[in-house]
Amino acid sequence: MAEDDAGSRDRLVIGAADMISRRGLNATSVRELAKHAKAPLGSTYHYFPGGKQQVATEAVQFAGDLVARTLIAELRAGPVAGLRAFLKLWRDTVVRSGFRAGCPVLAVSVEEPHVGETAPLQAADNVFKQWESLLARSLRDYGATRKDADQVATLIVAAVEGTVAVCRAARSIEPFDRVAIQLERAIAAALGAK
Amino acid sequence: MAEDDAGSRDRLVIGAADMISRRGLNATSVRELAKHAKAPLGSTYHYFPGGKQQVATEAVQFAGDLVARTLIAELRAGPVAGLRAFLKLWRDTVVRSGFRAGCPVLAVSVEEPHVGETAPLQAADNVFKQWESLLARSLRDYGATRKDADQVATLIVAAVEGTVAVCRAARSIEPFDRVAIQLERAIAAALGAK
Repeated sequence: MAEDDAGSRDRLVIGAADMISRRGLNATSVRELAKHAKAPLGSTYHYFPGGKQQVATEAVQFAGDLVARTLIAELRAGPVAGLRAFLKLWRDTVVRSGFRAGCPVLAVSVEEPHVGETAPLQAADNVFKQWESLLARSLRDYGATRKDADQVATLIVAAVEGTVAVCRAARSIEPFDRVAIQLERAIAAALGAK
Repeated sequence: MAEDDAGSRDRLVIGAADMISRRGLNATSVRELAKHAKAPLGSTYHYFPGGKQQVATEAVQFAGDLVARTLIAELRAGPVAGLRAFLKLWRDTVVRSGFRAGCPVLAVSVEEPHVGETAPLQAADNVFKQWESLLARSLRDYGATRKDADQVATLIVAAVEGTVAVCRAARSIEPFDRVAIQLERAIAAALGAK
């Protein structure tokens, strides 16, 4: 694929991730995606012959990979550093968008899929599991038992996703600050209980 | 209002809460709501002259009140009993619907509102704050400091909402079990640190 092609295709995926995180999957159309990314509608179907399901699936994977790369880099300094980086990513997204954007993975997870259109939901499941797995491995590396590591990793992913929604409803970042302190305590307890 | 009227009106609100929790707010229409509740379209606009925004706002309040009543009743036996009842409500909703339904308050919170249509989102904010307030008061009554009580209450609401989404994506209830144990630990830590 030529560099320009890759650029246009990527812009569509990135635009889809943003749009889905703002308004949900059902309310996102290929037509609006093309408009949002300033791309011709024909080129959108050229890049994504599978239509909306394909773009949405790639958008979820794109968001998943972006977060996973940050987690991998920051977890080198330990689980608390990883948690802080994870929180910062979502906090920045919510604040910069004026509490209008959130997480496309969460958005896809709260909409029941139509028959034969489960690819985005399956991608969301994979993303959540990848984030949990990265956090759990780091917790184990720092001394948590497997059980505690798995539980705290799931708590972190679920709580941060939920906090994004609570903050959007409140149009306030305060819930993030509260949850951050409690999640650091959960990590400390899991590491201390080794 | 006659009893029959109240019944039809309530059915529409309950149907809206279910529909929004499955497919989101943007993808829910008054026409489909009427169909879902087996009510004539005209009667829907008769009961809800404000249209979809009004039904959605009342649906969020209905879900909020339902959960709040359970919390008020179960928190009499302490914060852990309240947490367990809160978890059970959502677990039952997710399992009984085959992982297709979730929380209408969460659904409304992850969709950016159109101009002048913020009433459902404001209702969602009020509901989250009410649940947090009930949990925080119980935690304080059982010895937590105000700060810890507020933090743990927000963690519980955010984590449970996030877990509903994670479970729907995974089509598995396991994340609920993990998060439940960690939230009980957070309560124990907050009560022990008095």
